[in-house]
Amino acid sequence: MKKLAILGSTGSIGHSTLSICESFPDRYQVVSLAAGQNLEVAFAQCLRWKPRVISLGTEELAAALTTRLKAEGITSIEVVHGTAGTIHAATLPEVDFVVSAIVGVAGLEATYAAVKAGKTIGLANKECLVAAGELIIAAAHQHNIALLPIDSEHNAVHQCMRGGTPQEVKQVWLTASGGPFRNTPLADFEHITPAQALKHPTWVMGQRITIDSATMMNKGFEVIEACRLFSLPPAQVRTIIHPQSTVHSLVEFVDGSILAQISVTDMRLPILYALAYPERVPSDLTFDLTALSQLDFSTPDLTRFPCLRLAYEAAEAGGKVCIALNAADEIAVAAFLEGHIPFLGIPRTIEQVLTLTSGSRPSSISEVLEADLAARQCAREVIARQSIGVLR
Amino acid sequence: MKKLAILGSTGSIGHSTLSICESFPDRYQVVSLAAGQNLEVAFAQCLRWKPRVISLGTEELAAALTTRLKAEGITSIEVVHGTAGTIHAATLPEVDFVVSAIVGVAGLEATYAAVKAGKTIGLANKECLVAAGELIIAAAHQHNIALLPIDSEHNAVHQCMRGGTPQEVKQVWLTASGGPFRNTPLADFEHITPAQALKHPTWVMGQRITIDSATMMNKGFEVIEACRLFSLPPAQVRTIIHPQSTVHSLVEFVDGSILAQISVTDMRLPILYALAYPERVPSDLTFDLTALSQLDFSTPDLTRFPCLRLAYEAAEAGGKVCIALNAADEIAVAAFLEGHIPFLGIPRTIEQVLTLTSGSRPSSISEVLEADLAARQCAREVIARQSIGVLR
Repeated sequence: MKKLAILGSTGSIGHSTLSICESFPDRYQVVSLAAGQNLEVAFAQCLRWKPRVISLGTEELAAALTTRLKAEGITSIEVVHGTAGTIHAATLPEVDFVVSAIVGVAGLEATYAAVKAGKTIGLANKECLVAAGELIIAAAHQHNIALLPIDSEHNAVHQCMRGGTPQEVKQVWLTASGGPFRNTPLADFEHITPAQALKHPTWVMGQRITIDSATMMNKGFEVIEACRLFSLPPAQVRTIIHPQSTVHSLVEFVDGSILAQISVTDMRLPILYALAYPERVPSDLTFDLTALSQLDFSTPDLTRFPCLRLAYEAAEAGGKVCIALNAADEIAVAAFLEGHIPFLGIPRTIEQVLTLTSGSRPSSISEVLEADLAARQCAREVIARQSIGVLR
Repeated sequence: MKKLAILGSTGSIGHSTLSICESFPDRYQVVSLAAGQNLEVAFAQCLRWKPRVISLGTEELAAALTTRLKAEGITSIEVVHGTAGTIHAATLPEVDFVVSAIVGVAGLEATYAAVKAGKTIGLANKECLVAAGELIIAAAHQHNIALLPIDSEHNAVHQCMRGGTPQEVKQVWLTASGGPFRNTPLADFEHITPAQALKHPTWVMGQRITIDSATMMNKGFEVIEACRLFSLPPAQVRTIIHPQSTVHSLVEFVDGSILAQISVTDMRLPILYALAYPERVPSDLTFDLTALSQLDFSTPDLTRFPCLRLAYEAAEAGGKVCIALNAADEIAVAAFLEGHIPFLGIPRTIEQVLTLTSGSRPSSISEVLEADLAARQCAREVIARQSIGVLR
């Protein structure tokens, strides 16, 4: 029986993880949950899962939850809040496995604390590897714990890497759907509207990640994550457009052999893989190979996807440049969605912020968070200049 | 330094193996060779590789080779012949690894002897697993030796199986080019000529294997081999048509995840994999993923490929039925190429022979060889009746 802390329990990965706990009650026990603002869902999860600890975003929400639980006669659940609460939920002595699925830099401190507490980590939080990759990986090595990727691409790479030793990997190929604009002529990119960019061909996702998918910045972040997770230089992490999103990624070995991972596009599968690792657990998440008819592949054009190029540059520079990449992207995507900057204003903004960022490496999570705030402020200033026409 | 015995050194796999020895002189040393009738090539291989032992098909050929080597001043090579000679070459104490690539039942005895002598085997001989699979596998388990498949499909399966334990495999999917008739209407099958059947879309191979590919019997043999090699019941070994022959096979795990192996269609790659296992050795046999554009898949229609159905039935029955499948196919293919029976006469002949064969299991290689001879005789009789119109 593995005992789980689920950080981000009310989000999409949280739901999928709990759905797996539902399917495998003899294998996985929910010990603690951490949520943000969603009191209703957090309350329902307390009723269903009776965790020992739950953490909410604020003191007020925690108080409200405590009251509602008491009204149900439930007093066994310790309700905590904020970063300290999330860290508490993540580091309980009885927790074996932490699902790190809080979106944004908010997930950093608790995940880092869980690593240092020797917990196995199922990693769905992008910032842990993009913004704080060097710190988290060093801590994972130091404490000899497994960081198991939960997003489909890195999970696929993790599976394929079992076909050899890390030293036998020549390069990793992350597949990309290519987003809605993979066939759009370069000349039309300037005029892409938020509505067009929010239509993703294969996955239904949040707004930011959908735009990140349209700019391919999402793939850029994944390149950085792969570099950190698998200790590879950026040149050994390649991307390949594969619109069907059936092959989730590939690993090429030094002998010339390539392993590819194929499965349904259902996040429960990588979550189950991470939870069960090193075992594999029978599931009904079956991919019907007899229904497979055609798989297409092509090479991404970096001139049409400057965000991907910027991510490679950041991966190479490391440290605060990666922090700035993520922070500036978040601000720029919001500005695009609000109509302040055009689609190509996203990479322009990020590129400006990167040139204003030093390549130094933060030595603590608080330095990561500081650099994150600084990069956001820098991005807002760059956008303000852009919006009044300086950069257009 | 691994020390090799190459059984079938003058054939295609033998050439590819020696080409790898050429590329990796510090890793692989040729200790012994076994060839059949090709004196010229055997002589040239002796000059180039200076093996300690070489075995030829007959006493006359061995004497001729000895004379020619003496004329070159070479007396250090022990020249032997026949089955005993091949066994001697395969079981020399200093040999670590035996490449078993003699075509047909002629390769059985030496391979079995090598297994019993505790050698690691790189297996390219189909009969070892189709006709004598139960015996060879039992001996391999008993002597705790690795049987590493050298044909591209099983080698791909071997690689993909590293993604989990044998118990975690749900099923194995062998890819099939589908041969030249994968789109031919069923009604036209009766009139397929030898010339049509000898045109294979992707691989250039010998006559029998090309016809076996056109009937998909080749894939049927591979199903049986996979059952034996990976201890799977026939229901867990599936086939899927993939005309590009880029994905060499796939393994589906119990959790729903599938691993696929991709590489150039060059036999040196699976040979190198087998020789280097459990390591992977850097090679220039690179598959250019950026050139990958489209992969097609479809399900084979067993009504159009009765040989595949017969192979599944034989895999289920095991023992002498598998021996008869292989023996009857060889005779039937020869009869088809000589114009004695039509294309669909191949499966008709084999089906007749199988119904006349008992399902008992041979307990020695000599019993396998006896059963093989009996099945061949039976097939000839069935064809003789067919040719005079009894079965047409």
